[in-house]
Amino acid sequence: MRRFFVVGHRASTDPRFSLDDLAGGAGRMDILLNAANAALLLAHDLRRDVEVGLLLLGPPTPPRFVRLVGFRLKSYQPDIRSNAALIRRALVDVSRVEAESSPGVYGSIATFAEALDRLGPTFVLLKEGGKDIRVASLPADATFVLSDNQELLAEEERLLTDRGALVVGLGPVALHTDHAIALVQNELDRRGA
Amino acid sequence: MRRFFVVGHRASTDPRFSLDDLAGGAGRMDILLNAANAALLLAHDLRRDVEVGLLLLGPPTPPRFVRLVGFRLKSYQPDIRSNAALIRRALVDVSRVEAESSPGVYGSIATFAEALDRLGPTFVLLKEGGKDIRVASLPADATFVLSDNQELLAEEERLLTDRGALVVGLGPVALHTDHAIALVQNELDRRGA
Repeated sequence: MRRFFVVGHRASTDPRFSLDDLAGGAGRMDILLNAANAALLLAHDLRRDVEVGLLLLGPPTPPRFVRLVGFRLKSYQPDIRSNAALIRRALVDVSRVEAESSPGVYGSIATFAEALDRLGPTFVLLKEGGKDIRVASLPADATFVLSDNQELLAEEERLLTDRGALVVGLGPVALHTDHAIALVQNELDRRGA
Repeated sequence: MRRFFVVGHRASTDPRFSLDDLAGGAGRMDILLNAANAALLLAHDLRRDVEVGLLLLGPPTPPRFVRLVGFRLKSYQPDIRSNAALIRRALVDVSRVEAESSPGVYGSIATFAEALDRLGPTFVLLKEGGKDIRVASLPADATFVLSDNQELLAEEERLLTDRGALVVGLGPVALHTDHAIALVQNELDRRGA
């Protein structure tokens, strides 16, 4: 199983966030949805062996955790506007116990630390200056951790360090979250081929 | 200069296409806009040394060619919905002579062959089974050519072959256009670093 965890520091936790303003009013929900696409989509198929965890930390009721599980997804589309509707549905039920709001989409209340513990078992933090992914030894079943357009908070990084996260870099320039995930998937595809 | 040419076989050429239905009514305009983002955007900056050519072949008035020139762009956003408005504006003026409809955005009538001739001077066709990009010798100032979610037509491939296009592959699985571009950019970034 390949796992990606993406932190949306301002991502809306309102189940009625506007589908027409994903980048604005929904707190850069577009970044999370593009990241999920890069993790889950092949040209003409879904990656069944991928799990994506999205942490939504924006108003009004953070923290909320949405898990997308590749092999169970049924109505996942390349169009992020459609997928945003899946996220909205996952925000309706407010509970610490995970509920499957649509096939393969699970919503719950969870902090950064709790989300890590539900993903795991090992972590790779993608960060400029980390060991180059092309030569890094990557742990099996690792969860790759990325942030939105803001850096991870020092406290968030500490929680990863506490769990022995490997710090891996992708190249000489800082990239958008979805493009970074595309690079990780390609490296894993090449190693698995 | 890094150049990317993306063919949208069904992409709308109607300057009033709906911003709320980029994947549907606008003929997978979302693919072209995500591709442009992968070509043009860094985490916190624009790639000034990139030019993107989008060929729109959908109804009602194909073929239309939109060029985005990194170093001249002013109002380009990570949000594809905003950028779709730039494309719409580039479709208003119907002429074979290129007009700059917004800073760095140029629209004109052009066929596949004419668009190639405006980009050039050398071409790299990204295609499964091509020479692996990690070991391929890439020509300087090449235009990287990609399609939307449909294969290039045989006639389009022939026009590339006639121009001596190098055929390059990215890995063991077929990817979405934007993710493919992210991989090309990373390879070029690494070679340039």
